[in-house]
Amino acid sequence: MAGKERRFSLGLDYGTESARAVLLDVSNGKMAASASSKYKSGVIEGKLPSGIKLPKHWALQDPADWLNAFQSLSKSLLKKSKINPEQIVGIGIDFTSCTVLPAASDGKPLCFQPNFKRTPHAWPKLWKHHGAQEEAEAINKVAVEMGEKFLNKYGGKISPEWLIPKLLEIMNGAPEIAQAMDKFVEAQDWLVWQVTGTECRSACGAGYKGCWSKNGGFPDDIFLNALKPGLADTLKNKVGTHFYAPGHRAGTLCKSWALKTGLREGTPVGVSIIDAHAAVLGAGISDPGKMVLCIGTSACHLLLSDNEREVPGISGVVEDGILPGFFGYEAGQAAVGDIFGWFSKVSGKSFMALERRAKKLKPGESGLIALDWWNGNRSVLSDANLTGMILGLTLTTQPHEIYRALVEATAMGTRKIVETMEQFGVPVKDLIATGGIAEKSPMLLQIYADILNRPIELVQAKDLCARGAAVLGAIAAEDVSIRGGVQDVVRRMSPNPGRTYVPEGKNASIYETLYREYLELHDYFGTGGNGVMQRLRDF
Amino acid sequence: MAGKERRFSLGLDYGTESARAVLLDVSNGKMAASASSKYKSGVIEGKLPSGIKLPKHWALQDPADWLNAFQSLSKSLLKKSKINPEQIVGIGIDFTSCTVLPAASDGKPLCFQPNFKRTPHAWPKLWKHHGAQEEAEAINKVAVEMGEKFLNKYGGKISPEWLIPKLLEIMNGAPEIAQAMDKFVEAQDWLVWQVTGTECRSACGAGYKGCWSKNGGFPDDIFLNALKPGLADTLKNKVGTHFYAPGHRAGTLCKSWALKTGLREGTPVGVSIIDAHAAVLGAGISDPGKMVLCIGTSACHLLLSDNEREVPGISGVVEDGILPGFFGYEAGQAAVGDIFGWFSKVSGKSFMALERRAKKLKPGESGLIALDWWNGNRSVLSDANLTGMILGLTLTTQPHEIYRALVEATAMGTRKIVETMEQFGVPVKDLIATGGIAEKSPMLLQIYADILNRPIELVQAKDLCARGAAVLGAIAAEDVSIRGGVQDVVRRMSPNPGRTYVPEGKNASIYETLYREYLELHDYFGTGGNGVMQRLRDF
Repeated sequence: MAGKERRFSLGLDYGTESARAVLLDVSNGKMAASASSKYKSGVIEGKLPSGIKLPKHWALQDPADWLNAFQSLSKSLLKKSKINPEQIVGIGIDFTSCTVLPAASDGKPLCFQPNFKRTPHAWPKLWKHHGAQEEAEAINKVAVEMGEKFLNKYGGKISPEWLIPKLLEIMNGAPEIAQAMDKFVEAQDWLVWQVTGTECRSACGAGYKGCWSKNGGFPDDIFLNALKPGLADTLKNKVGTHFYAPGHRAGTLCKSWALKTGLREGTPVGVSIIDAHAAVLGAGISDPGKMVLCIGTSACHLLLSDNEREVPGISGVVEDGILPGFFGYEAGQAAVGDIFGWFSKVSGKSFMALERRAKKLKPGESGLIALDWWNGNRSVLSDANLTGMILGLTLTTQPHEIYRALVEATAMGTRKIVETMEQFGVPVKDLIATGGIAEKSPMLLQIYADILNRPIELVQAKDLCARGAAVLGAIAAEDVSIRGGVQDVVRRMSPNPGRTYVPEGKNASIYETLYREYLELHDYFGTGGNGVMQRLRDF
Repeated sequence: MAGKERRFSLGLDYGTESARAVLLDVSNGKMAASASSKYKSGVIEGKLPSGIKLPKHWALQDPADWLNAFQSLSKSLLKKSKINPEQIVGIGIDFTSCTVLPAASDGKPLCFQPNFKRTPHAWPKLWKHHGAQEEAEAINKVAVEMGEKFLNKYGGKISPEWLIPKLLEIMNGAPEIAQAMDKFVEAQDWLVWQVTGTECRSACGAGYKGCWSKNGGFPDDIFLNALKPGLADTLKNKVGTHFYAPGHRAGTLCKSWALKTGLREGTPVGVSIIDAHAAVLGAGISDPGKMVLCIGTSACHLLLSDNEREVPGISGVVEDGILPGFFGYEAGQAAVGDIFGWFSKVSGKSFMALERRAKKLKPGESGLIALDWWNGNRSVLSDANLTGMILGLTLTTQPHEIYRALVEATAMGTRKIVETMEQFGVPVKDLIATGGIAEKSPMLLQIYADILNRPIELVQAKDLCARGAAVLGAIAAEDVSIRGGVQDVVRRMSPNPGRTYVPEGKNASIYETLYREYLELHDYFGTGGNGVMQRLRDF
């Protein structure tokens, strides 16, 4: 049981299938308790709970699941930890994004209304909902034609998973929903709104997924209305005009949610943040130049910087997007662990069996090289139609050799991202790794260190996203929304340092040569030397 | 039991692990009997029968196995068929090549002599013996430096498996053997010599594997002696100066071998032929422009032509090499079935399981393309250091899709060979497929027909090589060593026509586009656009 004088922050992390929550000591970041809660409806695919059929590639969620998770996780942590609710001084929330829903002016989701609950477009669209492909293509095409500069902040292209495509999808597919909704809101902001009574939207969601920027706002009205008449006004009126940096206080817990959870009414709640971005704070990072590599099924690279630069092929740069006073950069690889999973399936061999033999290989020994584009290239080529390639195969090539070549390819993809950032004036000083694959594979991290030729520190702590949310709760409690202030809290609550993987000189030097080969193939297939990959997709 | 008036020819096919034999009716090619005999020592690797250790990549054989096979197969066929030896009017022999041995002037193999039987270099070197890599590299290098034209007949490069590298290997590695031997002889010629008492060497072995040509003889003396002083004389004195086209009579069965086998003394024996080349005759081909595709673990493409042309990257063109009066062309793919076997192993899936699903795919549907260079490229790039490549991989790529892409790649490699021949003035009119893989996979032959956009006839008959040897026996019996005469015999003894695979227009048109992609990648990686494959081999 915690001492009476200690103070805690509650962090809630809303994932795709479930939510997790932690209670952290705000003085040192030590975890007092954690819990998780699976969503009842999970990802709604194929059909609505009412049986209405959904198109292919649709992925929806039920807002009731989010509310239930908030209630049950809060109660469960209070019970587990036996901490007095008075000692819980702040609440933070992170969420998948862009998960977005239409709501009434009081926040009631349209899918809760009896007249709309059988209308698919009334339901929240999960981040990975892929119904707005055409809308995204139109946006990218028209934006290029009209010379819209906002694209440059997103590496020249936006994704069908983002907010404006999803909004257009409703306007095109269900005008009655577009008409009926008063708000079109990121789930993360909606949840904060529900539990505080205050609508205070995050610059993180708006900046990374909504094409909004602190200086320029949303894209130009003329451009928006060229896409769809009325789009500019819809964005302003239903998405909003003011967005706040994570690290600000959004409001305080309202009476009804205090009663539902047992938490104290008036507990400060922070501005929400995207889950991946929360991991930066959870890892204790608040200094510019420290890049967090989240290596999971896909990879996300996040970096705070003092410099605003347009870096080609970077998924986004958002002022105040992660912490106030910084430019937050995001890049990504569309598949990492997914590639290894694919090969494990193709070869019928377990990760463990493959890795046991792969780790004994020397760099270059197999004679293989691969391009890591099994799910396209997100950064720095921003081309979803690129595909994977393996070269150097012989009759004696063995599965574990291919496996290692795939790991190496993802590391080279990461190096290309880091080098592109630096080349365009965004310094990358340190590398910090997190994520499921990073935690499970020491071989992978050593290969990454050797190929990137830099030390990589593995963050050992669990629940980094939820930890990051709790950090934002602590910052909200102290109400210190300035750069120095928030940095103090992040540092104080950072987890213990983990193992550092140091490049081995000999390996690094072989990989230097292999990386030159990777670059030549990368440019040949990726930048127009031979468009065979894109052409084969069109067959 | 065969009628008394019928006449038969005995064909013996000496393979790597065993020999096969057939008795064919010389009037119509119908098979009266067949038999096979496994060599006792098989491929001698690792160590000699005496226990003497052999270097890695060495592969030897025991001449006693060949003699035993001749005796046991002859006796077994006589017994099985109950044919009167008087009715067996000719004998033909085909053999793996270049399988070559040092012998005394009376033909006794040096490895039979007590003082040499523990000396590895005294033993016959099997075709796939890889001990003469350095010698072959020296030959290729010096020949290019000295502008030797003979290389052009072999696509610009000779193989370490061939006669001159193997001869140099002995001169360098065991001068006492080079000194002691009076003869250095292809196994096929040695066997004919043993059973007839006449040394009559074949233009097939000498032409395809010995760098000899009817017009030019062996390469220039100055060149040979620059490689190794005395090499020119050694070739002339110990390999020979006269070589005869298959289709000639080499001699007749001597008394001692008549006694050993039960065959009639004086039975005519034909000039020997290489096993792959025998298949052309066995398939009933004696017209120019009909290309035989032998599709097995690797592939061999053989063609009779009236035209002598230098075709880049073709393994060999030999006047009189297959039949008198024709130029015989040979090209090859270093791995075909071996690539499918590799993938079956890597994926842990059977050929049958892979093919069952692969045959349902449409051309181009998988979005994959591959380069078929798992064992290097023999024709038309003649580069053993090239390697395999697969491109178009995604997270949804399935094993059977890769399998089909590999089959398609080998077909495209074949098309490139056919097109190169035609481009350099050697017409290819018809395609006839043989070999284990061709027989087993209707899917493969349909893909080949679609990709080559020509009908392909499958030869259904078994034991094509042995059949071809029997055809040579029949020709020897009639002693008709002129073009028209041998063609008559080949046609008369040809097997029944097999199934013809006709290109499907729609598929052929899609493959036309895919083949353009193949060519672009072929040239980029194969002809210097990007030497990454060769560089990766050097790591």
